[in-house]
Amino acid sequence: MKESNVDVLIIGAGPAGLMASNAFAAAGVNVRVVDKRPSKVAAGQADGIQPRTIEVFQSYGLADRLIREGNQMHFAAFYNPAPGGGITRDGRAPDVTAPTARFPFEVTLHQGAIEAIFIDSMKSNGLQIDRPIVPESIEVSGDDSELNSPDSYPVKVVLRHLDAQEGESGTEVVHAKYVLGADGAHSWVRNAIGFTMDGEQTDYVWGVVDMVPTTDFPDIRNRCAIHSPSGSCMIIPREGDVVRLYLQLSNEDAKEVINAKGRIDRTKWGPDRLLEIAKRSLQPFTISFPKEVEWWTLYIIGQRVASSFSLKERVFIAGDACHTHSPKAGQGMNASMNDSHNLVWKITHVLRGWAHRSLLKTYEFERRKYAQDLINFDKKFSALFSGKPRTEDNQDGVSHEEFLEAFQTFGGFTSGIGIQYLPSPISRVLSENASNIASNLNIGTRMPPQIIIRAADARPFELHDLLPSDTRFKVIVFSGDINELGAQKDRLAHFASAACGEDGVLSRLGVKKLLSGRAQGAAGTVTSRKSWTTVFEVLTVMKGKKETVNYTSVPAEMVSHWSKVFVDDIEIKGINGGKAYESFGIGFEGAVVVVRPDGYIGSVLSLDDVQGLSDYFETFMS
Amino acid sequence: MKESNVDVLIIGAGPAGLMASNAFAAAGVNVRVVDKRPSKVAAGQADGIQPRTIEVFQSYGLADRLIREGNQMHFAAFYNPAPGGGITRDGRAPDVTAPTARFPFEVTLHQGAIEAIFIDSMKSNGLQIDRPIVPESIEVSGDDSELNSPDSYPVKVVLRHLDAQEGESGTEVVHAKYVLGADGAHSWVRNAIGFTMDGEQTDYVWGVVDMVPTTDFPDIRNRCAIHSPSGSCMIIPREGDVVRLYLQLSNEDAKEVINAKGRIDRTKWGPDRLLEIAKRSLQPFTISFPKEVEWWTLYIIGQRVASSFSLKERVFIAGDACHTHSPKAGQGMNASMNDSHNLVWKITHVLRGWAHRSLLKTYEFERRKYAQDLINFDKKFSALFSGKPRTEDNQDGVSHEEFLEAFQTFGGFTSGIGIQYLPSPISRVLSENASNIASNLNIGTRMPPQIIIRAADARPFELHDLLPSDTRFKVIVFSGDINELGAQKDRLAHFASAACGEDGVLSRLGVKKLLSGRAQGAAGTVTSRKSWTTVFEVLTVMKGKKETVNYTSVPAEMVSHWSKVFVDDIEIKGINGGKAYESFGIGFEGAVVVVRPDGYIGSVLSLDDVQGLSDYFETFMS
Repeated sequence: MKESNVDVLIIGAGPAGLMASNAFAAAGVNVRVVDKRPSKVAAGQADGIQPRTIEVFQSYGLADRLIREGNQMHFAAFYNPAPGGGITRDGRAPDVTAPTARFPFEVTLHQGAIEAIFIDSMKSNGLQIDRPIVPESIEVSGDDSELNSPDSYPVKVVLRHLDAQEGESGTEVVHAKYVLGADGAHSWVRNAIGFTMDGEQTDYVWGVVDMVPTTDFPDIRNRCAIHSPSGSCMIIPREGDVVRLYLQLSNEDAKEVINAKGRIDRTKWGPDRLLEIAKRSLQPFTISFPKEVEWWTLYIIGQRVASSFSLKERVFIAGDACHTHSPKAGQGMNASMNDSHNLVWKITHVLRGWAHRSLLKTYEFERRKYAQDLINFDKKFSALFSGKPRTEDNQDGVSHEEFLEAFQTFGGFTSGIGIQYLPSPISRVLSENASNIASNLNIGTRMPPQIIIRAADARPFELHDLLPSDTRFKVIVFSGDINELGAQKDRLAHFASAACGEDGVLSRLGVKKLLSGRAQGAAGTVTSRKSWTTVFEVLTVMKGKKETVNYTSVPAEMVSHWSKVFVDDIEIKGINGGKAYESFGIGFEGAVVVVRPDGYIGSVLSLDDVQGLSDYFETFMS
Repeated sequence: MKESNVDVLIIGAGPAGLMASNAFAAAGVNVRVVDKRPSKVAAGQADGIQPRTIEVFQSYGLADRLIREGNQMHFAAFYNPAPGGGITRDGRAPDVTAPTARFPFEVTLHQGAIEAIFIDSMKSNGLQIDRPIVPESIEVSGDDSELNSPDSYPVKVVLRHLDAQEGESGTEVVHAKYVLGADGAHSWVRNAIGFTMDGEQTDYVWGVVDMVPTTDFPDIRNRCAIHSPSGSCMIIPREGDVVRLYLQLSNEDAKEVINAKGRIDRTKWGPDRLLEIAKRSLQPFTISFPKEVEWWTLYIIGQRVASSFSLKERVFIAGDACHTHSPKAGQGMNASMNDSHNLVWKITHVLRGWAHRSLLKTYEFERRKYAQDLINFDKKFSALFSGKPRTEDNQDGVSHEEFLEAFQTFGGFTSGIGIQYLPSPISRVLSENASNIASNLNIGTRMPPQIIIRAADARPFELHDLLPSDTRFKVIVFSGDINELGAQKDRLAHFASAACGEDGVLSRLGVKKLLSGRAQGAAGTVTSRKSWTTVFEVLTVMKGKKETVNYTSVPAEMVSHWSKVFVDDIEIKGINGGKAYESFGIGFEGAVVVVRPDGYIGSVLSLDDVQGLSDYFETFMS
């Protein structure tokens, strides 16, 4: 039987598996991804990308294509029973209510197109999906020294090639350092390692149908929450002229499609029944369906979380394999991809010998908590949405105001922007007065976007674009005004020497690291490459005026290239910029913000606290 | 000898030839392009793209790549002699002073990379450059009926293949309906058809050098105009870390490199001499050149315009073939590409039988006037730049204030934004009160950008992105507020019927046209495709609030797709939008703006003046 070694084996090439595959490939990690399907998904399934997930796509250089190919949802429209029958619009409200979202909309695009974005990007880094392949067995070494060794391959997986020719064995053995089970709600990996799904199932049955309608309904291109006398309905406009409808089945209808085991039987209904419900729910507006339905399904809402996300920090599960919930809040695919986004840099740092294996414990710590929050949210939201609307005859129903308030309250959560990881070695308060140093930056949340101006050429940049998911920690030095304040210049000079100088903290940690071709900074015009640029990116954001600041004023030790120095000033066009210090709550004394490789704030320190910087990294770095 | 027919033959694949090639290929025109060079330019040559040219790139879908690959110049810095010797900065100012520029910066990128953008785009439409090929003879029929016939091929060109194998004839005959000579300053086509270059040559000798410097000069990434005691120098930062220097030679140096015929002899000097001048000019700042020079040249400024741009409207010349001037103002490549942009849609309309051949006369009318303006500007600007700076000892020199004022005054011109074509059948005042209907829109200038909101889904759009160079005329209907004002609703209903209804003006003109696959509008969800969408795009911009307007309120006759209806309101994020009526000077009564296929305003009409709309198009359409 064929045997081979691989650093990371990913099982499953859905959204979670592909996000991980692409990120590992971009980082130059030795990775292999297998999937049981002979080809990628063509239509249907999950389709909504939240604002935070768009930011994550952008950090991998993939947002442009996502936005170009997808549809944007800016507005949510709310329809409720009209006094005289049928429905009427109670109002429109922003679909995204998180004020700091860089992309203030959701993107909708069918899952196959989203997967294609990853597949093409991976290919440019030399990685393709091996398929159709299924795992047959998985075994993790019980030997502690093997489990703790950086050089061992303690996970043994037997894979079966479904397209093996007669006479071929069809199976092979893969020895992996790490395995990621991203194989969906019925995860083989999860079952094989003995984790259970804990939670419950509701009685609500929903149908989903993707089609191209002809209609006089004026909100067909907005997200709509419709509470009609004929049941609840959600409209999600999609790329091109496609529209997705989520339709709640009445109790009578639900009985027709649930079999004796309490499972959905899709042979009982066709999409025509769903379209009939849509026609009734939208009255007095008319809607018809000149073309064939593109995709449809029926489902029962269930909310469950896996008992654990990781076995000995050698086998991990991500995505639907660890959490299932209702699709209507548009969370499923987002949660899945963000699981992988959280995990990949950690495994990469350990594989490179940069970090202790303890870093890997933060994956379950951060993501399982999130999955539980998600399920709690989903229960509340689903109940609200599936409940009867308030009408003359039903004063106990859900009112428009209640629903709208919930919609907006949940905005930080549904957008993904408001997520905050709890304190851990990688999101850590180190200065007692951290909350004064940058009073609006919350450790454990994602670094917010801001337009800043590059000092050398006055070109405006979105700070997020300076924080790519390139596996490096970013140290953003808000230097204050070093031209006006002599003391501030001295403090910066001290920081530069103590952090970035030849014997500085970052140099000490950075020099020890293995050199990875992909993680290197660009060569500089003005200053030579620093020893720390493999592991760290250092950016300086000065206070001052673009007309007078000189990038050459920043101590050369901390400037790896002329392009790394910025000023917090308004752009020449006069619209954006100049609000970084103010919006982050940073005063004239400046601040040092450590941003993790996944874009989340690791710590906030005073400019003088180089010891804090050292403490932060020493805790988990080798 | 091989003989063939082609609708358009383009001779020369520099910027003018490639802009034309790409535009013809995108329009689906039968076109062929030949060039004498065996491969494309790798470095050097022209490199500056003005704001207006970026807008034109965007209209062909090419700006993203241009901006991604290029460098952006936002600031110009001005250095002058310091009292104690050397130079000092007098200030920085925006490099682009045209207030309506959509892209408020210039892009710099080497010519080979710019050409590659066109070459890749053409390839996606099935067109590649034939090379190395030179023309040997060109002959235009003297027969008037042949010249006027849409089906004839009255231009005969003999081409020689420079890479012909021994024994092959190496020549072929091409019969073309139209020929474009885009073969540069020493144009073979221009000489062959007997046009002369009229103008003069100055005494100023300049050197150009592209290299990667190491320096402490803080404005190395800004455009710099440096008047030093050692001569004038211009810095143009380029992609990556490359910098281009333009350096004026002293009279003594100039004598060394000019031969007896008054021409530059490049064997006399190397780039080292230019770098020495740079070192002297930048003092007290230091600059060194650790890498080899990428490209360099020497030139004498000359300003000339061709005696004519077109022979019998069958052979045209464009780009350097019709105008030469100094490169420092960054106009050359821009003027060349905009010549082609002006010409392509006109030839395309005539080839499709949509327009009379008289339309072609507007090319020389519009572009030769521009070339003359360009040369007048260039003379003034070059003299100012080449003149001695004002110092203690030289009170007659050019002061910083004079230079800055000239720089800003010329901003509309150098950015390309301020260009206004004179009245002609395609840029025409038809309503006596046109200037009141849209008081800030000037017929003959390019339609200014504005953010507007799509009514169906509240997605913000840049108006420019709704005006692609797809050969169609755009009719933008500013409808006013049709929900608040009953009279306005009636006026719009009348316009819709009289312009877009079955017997309407646009339908009458549109139905007669040949159907071209490429020029068709997208199929609509809500309304079926209109007969006029091949030739015209109709966009509606309402006054109103995004929260309450319905795209379904606009008469269906004028809505080819749900995506064609907009509202002039601020975007949900609250930054851009809501200023179209105000900034264009359009009142509550609305306006109809005709935008030419090249993005220039053709006419401005009142909503009631459907007769004016008819008059505009009937004058040049078949």
